[in-house]
Amino acid sequence: MTLYQDLSERLKEHIELGFYKPGDKLPSVRQLSHEHGVSISTVQEAYRQLEQEILVEARPKSGYFVMPKQRVDNLPNVSRPPQRPLEVSQWEEVFNLLMIGDNKKGVQLQHAMPDMTTPTLKPLLKTLADLSKQKPELGLGYGDLRGSEELRTQLCRLGVASGCQLHPDDLVVTSGCQEALSVCLRAVTDPGDIIAIESPSFYGSMQAIKAANLKAMEIPTHADTGISLEALELALDQWPIKAILVTPTCNNPLGYTMSDDKKERLYRLAQSYDIAIIEDDIYGDIAYQFPRPRSIKSFDEDGRVLLCSSFSKTVAPGIRVGWIAPGRYRDKVTHIKYVSSSMCPTLPQLAIAQFIRLGGYDKHIRTMRQRYEKQRDHMLSAIKRYLPSNTRVSFPDGGFILWVELDKDIDSMKLVEQCRKEGVGFAPGPLFSATGKYRHCFRINFSEQGMEQRESAIKILASVLLQFKSLS
Amino acid sequence: MTLYQDLSERLKEHIELGFYKPGDKLPSVRQLSHEHGVSISTVQEAYRQLEQEILVEARPKSGYFVMPKQRVDNLPNVSRPPQRPLEVSQWEEVFNLLMIGDNKKGVQLQHAMPDMTTPTLKPLLKTLADLSKQKPELGLGYGDLRGSEELRTQLCRLGVASGCQLHPDDLVVTSGCQEALSVCLRAVTDPGDIIAIESPSFYGSMQAIKAANLKAMEIPTHADTGISLEALELALDQWPIKAILVTPTCNNPLGYTMSDDKKERLYRLAQSYDIAIIEDDIYGDIAYQFPRPRSIKSFDEDGRVLLCSSFSKTVAPGIRVGWIAPGRYRDKVTHIKYVSSSMCPTLPQLAIAQFIRLGGYDKHIRTMRQRYEKQRDHMLSAIKRYLPSNTRVSFPDGGFILWVELDKDIDSMKLVEQCRKEGVGFAPGPLFSATGKYRHCFRINFSEQGMEQRESAIKILASVLLQFKSLS
Ligand SMILES: Cc1ncc(COP(=O)(O)O)c(C=O)c1O
Ligand SMILES: Cc1ncc(COP(=O)(O)O)c(C=O)c1O
Repeated sequence: MTLYQDLSERLKEHIELGFYKPGDKLPSVRQLSHEHGVSISTVQEAYRQLEQEILVEARPKSGYFVMPKQRVDNLPNVSRPPQRPLEVSQWEEVFNLLMIGDNKKGVQLQHAMPDMTTPTLKPLLKTLADLSKQKPELGLGYGDLRGSEELRTQLCRLGVASGCQLHPDDLVVTSGCQEALSVCLRAVTDPGDIIAIESPSFYGSMQAIKAANLKAMEIPTHADTGISLEALELALDQWPIKAILVTPTCNNPLGYTMSDDKKERLYRLAQSYDIAIIEDDIYGDIAYQFPRPRSIKSFDEDGRVLLCSSFSKTVAPGIRVGWIAPGRYRDKVTHIKYVSSSMCPTLPQLAIAQFIRLGGYDKHIRTMRQRYEKQRDHMLSAIKRYLPSNTRVSFPDGGFILWVELDKDIDSMKLVEQCRKEGVGFAPGPLFSATGKYRHCFRINFSEQGMEQRESAIKILASVLLQFKSLS
Repeated sequence: MTLYQDLSERLKEHIELGFYKPGDKLPSVRQLSHEHGVSISTVQEAYRQLEQEILVEARPKSGYFVMPKQRVDNLPNVSRPPQRPLEVSQWEEVFNLLMIGDNKKGVQLQHAMPDMTTPTLKPLLKTLADLSKQKPELGLGYGDLRGSEELRTQLCRLGVASGCQLHPDDLVVTSGCQEALSVCLRAVTDPGDIIAIESPSFYGSMQAIKAANLKAMEIPTHADTGISLEALELALDQWPIKAILVTPTCNNPLGYTMSDDKKERLYRLAQSYDIAIIEDDIYGDIAYQFPRPRSIKSFDEDGRVLLCSSFSKTVAPGIRVGWIAPGRYRDKVTHIKYVSSSMCPTLPQLAIAQFIRLGGYDKHIRTMRQRYEKQRDHMLSAIKRYLPSNTRVSFPDGGFILWVELDKDIDSMKLVEQCRKEGVGFAPGPLFSATGKYRHCFRINFSEQGMEQRESAIKILASVLLQFKSLS
């Protein structure tokens, strides 16, 4: 390691240890040169290195500062969706997104895929391989319709962290969270019913609403505090809404976590209108805060909350293990799960159960939580540095996706198309609306470990945006 | 091997080679003693052995005969379901059946489980274990929404045997045939629509009809030739039926295969009423005849047939790999498959694709086809020997299940309950009707290899039936 690298590593360590917090002034070049007995140019080189990693910024005539965290003042605007129930459209756009293979070259940040190259997944992969070698017969028969009891027991253990007291009999294992959401929607509604949702919302739940012959009522949503309870109450007064579907913890796409207090108020609201809540908690375990935030389910007194989740974001989507804590809807949920795809394969369930039981899951989650938080800060800094100054961007409390709001005239569908040609992929905004709003927004994934890749993606995006500007 | 065992083995071989056909007279005891240079009592012992295996029968004063095949004259009666569309009930009964674990002791013949102890499955299990060891990353990411292209290519190859010319793009992989059926039902209907089905019918499809808010119109069905086209046409004239769901090849539970001619006529009928056909072909590849029967899909000219299948009966249900050839409904089917459970896991798909590609699947199917046919004959003989003479029983053309019709006053729900206490399980008739008919019928599985187990199950059933008789 050269002298300047050595120095930049030390500074980095000091920043990570919290000696210098975001926005703090760092020691002057002269001071560091003196303290470490190195030349001025070595210190300058070290700072340049940290600037490149977007950890520090130079302010003219003031010196170097720790990169300030993304500020809340340029969050995306509160959404203003149409105030009536509507059919969900956008399937063609979603389909086009889904058909982009993961093996495509370039920097593909359109899918909400976790980092799966981390060594903390190794124990799980080993268990999977061992099980399918040593107990192949477990992969052959039908298993328990509700899922393996071993897994359901471990899921109860995980539930404790979000404030839930569950019993294995309270759970139904599914093929991912997508099946969980579809099953729950069908369990609590009749065709033609209305579902209230956040806006923007995950496209998979909206498409499930469409397929179940339901209508979506998009509710205005704040990028920092979540769904507007005032607007929701107004909607509940005006329309015969059958259930509320929310992702209150590390929301997709906005990243916010609703406060405990607001979660409880949402629950009380559902109670007073006697409707069900479908709570999508898929990102809950990779909230950056520890212990993780409570779920709405943890406030549930009368079984009206159906909690849906899976290991697709915390571990890997290909495992296809999800679950439902269906509360009072258990029998209906079991019926619809059975007709939907019958039992789930046993081996992945057992492997995950063991991963949790032996502590591998907790360790993995701890690692990812910290890593994603750093990667968020880096990505936010890159956006701040390279994208136009009127860009608005979310400040996620967990997970690995950002929601970016551009100038009103920018068409993100066209932007995505152009960027794709240049090898960069992200998800255009209209997919996250029932009716194709958010044309000037997009969602971008930052789970990718490579700092250079992330940065180069943003640079390409910036250059394409510049072309757009000069055209208009 | 003792002398008599040696002799009985030779006789068995001669029967299997077809030297002696079902119903043929076998050589006299004296003649065999002379030919083989063994004692009279050795020959008698050998014949007793074959009697016990229900391969031959002794007729008083006439000698020994090869056990005649089950005759068509005591097939179950043509069904006479109510002639109007009805809501499907029976979920509780189906649920109770599903909750019986496979690890229960005794002889559990209630689930339509294939024999999974056969060595012909070894290559598949090895591939699965190797893949999850050598390419664990394949198990992590989302795969192609339509299923792995390798598998879809091999499925096209299999399709040729049933007369279909398919392209990989014509297929959508699913989590078993249950998901395939559910997705197809939802793709071709709107809530409230009517679906015509065979009667009796597989409970899983009927429960899917219920969950999709559809009504079932049960059509009279012959135990040898399948759904009555006359009755179907009458129903089509009277009711706005949206689609026909049939299992025309090795039907569950009746075992028949509709003739090619009748399959084509069914297709033409659907064409003239412009409705869709959902064809469940799950048992098609283990028809006893070789080459296997054609599918209705093979007659499809305009894409109105949605073929559904899986490897659950031919290979193992725990693999959870099924597929749809959705014809003109491809886009709708892809949408509903996506919301239903998103992508299917990749590893099992690749393992099956390789199993097919390297010839393991064909070899396995050949073995199972022959074994199941023998086991059918044995099971039919046992039923003929031990159950009351007015018992009617199906004569399946493939697969490993029998449908048994008892005396009208027998309540199979009670019979099942009593037999369960004595360690024998089978599936009561009402599950196979939308409205709980067929109370005096049951379905029994004969995939179990052990001849003794099968026979002892039938003996216990017979003794419980006897108790029932003496009570009434
Ligand atoms: C909020 C949310 N819910 C559900 C899902 C679907 O998850 P799974 O892959 O487990 O079906 C996703 C995945 O993108 C998601 O982001
Ligand atoms: C006729 C029929 N269709 C569909 C199924 C469901 O198959 P899978 O286990 O592949 O979902 C079965 C299984 O019992 C069946 O017998």
